[in-house]
Amino acid sequence: MDEFDFIVSHLAPLSEQHPAALGLQDDAALVEIPEGHKLIITKDAIVEGVHFIGDEPPARIAQKALRVNLSDCAAMGAKPYGYFMALLLSETVQEDWLAGFAKGLAQDQKTYGLSLLGGDTTRTYGSLAITITLLGLVPNDMALKRSGARVGDEIYVSGTIGDAVLGLHFAKQDLFNPTPQEVHDVLRERYQLPLPRVALGERLRGIATSCIDISDGLVQDLGHICAASGVGAVIDWNKIPLSKSALDIAGATPEILLAGGDDYELMFTLPPDSDEARHILSRITPITCIGTIAEGGGVKVMHGRDEIKLPRGGFKHF
Amino acid sequence: MDEFDFIVSHLAPLSEQHPAALGLQDDAALVEIPEGHKLIITKDAIVEGVHFIGDEPPARIAQKALRVNLSDCAAMGAKPYGYFMALLLSETVQEDWLAGFAKGLAQDQKTYGLSLLGGDTTRTYGSLAITITLLGLVPNDMALKRSGARVGDEIYVSGTIGDAVLGLHFAKQDLFNPTPQEVHDVLRERYQLPLPRVALGERLRGIATSCIDISDGLVQDLGHICAASGVGAVIDWNKIPLSKSALDIAGATPEILLAGGDDYELMFTLPPDSDEARHILSRITPITCIGTIAEGGGVKVMHGRDEIKLPRGGFKHF
Repeated sequence: MDEFDFIVSHLAPLSEQHPAALGLQDDAALVEIPEGHKLIITKDAIVEGVHFIGDEPPARIAQKALRVNLSDCAAMGAKPYGYFMALLLSETVQEDWLAGFAKGLAQDQKTYGLSLLGGDTTRTYGSLAITITLLGLVPNDMALKRSGARVGDEIYVSGTIGDAVLGLHFAKQDLFNPTPQEVHDVLRERYQLPLPRVALGERLRGIATSCIDISDGLVQDLGHICAASGVGAVIDWNKIPLSKSALDIAGATPEILLAGGDDYELMFTLPPDSDEARHILSRITPITCIGTIAEGGGVKVMHGRDEIKLPRGGFKHF
Repeated sequence: MDEFDFIVSHLAPLSEQHPAALGLQDDAALVEIPEGHKLIITKDAIVEGVHFIGDEPPARIAQKALRVNLSDCAAMGAKPYGYFMALLLSETVQEDWLAGFAKGLAQDQKTYGLSLLGGDTTRTYGSLAITITLLGLVPNDMALKRSGARVGDEIYVSGTIGDAVLGLHFAKQDLFNPTPQEVHDVLRERYQLPLPRVALGERLRGIATSCIDISDGLVQDLGHICAASGVGAVIDWNKIPLSKSALDIAGATPEILLAGGDDYELMFTLPPDSDEARHILSRITPITCIGTIAEGGGVKVMHGRDEIKLPRGGFKHF
């Protein structure tokens, strides 16, 4: 199977429903933006040995590649529109792997309502890698940003925190044994298959004062909101929402859970006393208040009256 | 130097002048399209050992990554707007390499009038790779496509053909010795540093009936125009524009020159008797008529009265 055969048999069907793709037949896609809207564009790569192990089912690798970008789209409050993919295939990749990979894309296209619009497929020597450029639509002046947090705002996160980093440790088989197999499985799935909070992100438009997706670790990403907004933050370790699986693991310390990457939950700020907004949002996804925006800069993590000092946090891919 | 330091010191300055980049500070860029325009979007990857050798100066690698995409932008008749980059860095890359790479991007941003709008930087295990997603603007209904060639149209190419594939052979030191060093140098530069025909592409709007950039070899790419337009093509080997350097090389056969990739010249069709258009276009870039669109399908290469049979052509990256 050469590049053209792969495009015709596996990729072209993924773009069929979208006129902007021009049937993947031209040198570029042709995108029209509906009046009154802007386009958000994000580009994230995932690399074997860095962002995934390599032994995952190919459909799951495809979905992770899409979903880390969908999470950025959610953080901007945008509605997914379409994506471009560069697929860098290592020498060991076989046709059945490609078929499984394309199937994973097809499933997520349905789930999140988007189409493949173009891209490139090539060999590489070494790690398999996928880079996705994802487009989303957002009404004019409604995009969520990191820069709007104000002193007194409450800090919220969706879902539970730290499951993915525990799953990564299990996937690498380097920690926390013995732990029941079911717990392994739940957490490994959280690492392999993020759940981008697209519906929540869209609903946050006009409500949240700032928003980010947690990809590099909660504390580090909250630091980005603080830096962009010119504020500080105080959060309470006891309020961090943890899954039952994470609570079962004795070694799951704040250092690991708050600095581990790959949560792909949204973190956002609401003005004080936003009871109605909180009520509306929690009907879409469970959300939890974990602290407050404060004067100054940087992130303080409290445990009751004591401050927990974390090493300069966050997962570095570089 | 970690990812954030690299972004702050080398990448952020490349996005400073463009409001859509949001200072590379948010989860995505925010793009607004001027009224009456559409966006063309193209995404091409270049990989060490596949699209470049790896011993090139880093600025030149950066420029090749941008320019292969600018060539697609030109083929659509669009004006460059901005780009997103995923940079997959192999373990051997050092800080001075990164500085040189960023300098190459800065130079080409000035030359072609575009800004970095976002992206991702990560380690990889294996080949260094760069994927670029390039955006261009084109007035509504004015994008050039591959599908408009009609029987009787004349087929044109810009510049000269085959230099890059000869340069590749020199870069790999696997052919055509002995050849004077100056010829090596000229042809190697043509391989390393494409000259995307952006100004020509913009001028072709409303004039050319079809257009493509020659990246996989002239015959193969002309085949794409034929397939998209439902026509055939007859070209004349004696009319193919060759550089003085290529003419000096005894081993430069039609098989090599017409099937080699990386020309990044534009190939386009004009209606018969387009004397005025030809005159206007040749003031921008030298252009040469190499043949005619015919009934049927596929590409015939003639040498006087005889047909030259080429093996199924084109360079496959996959």
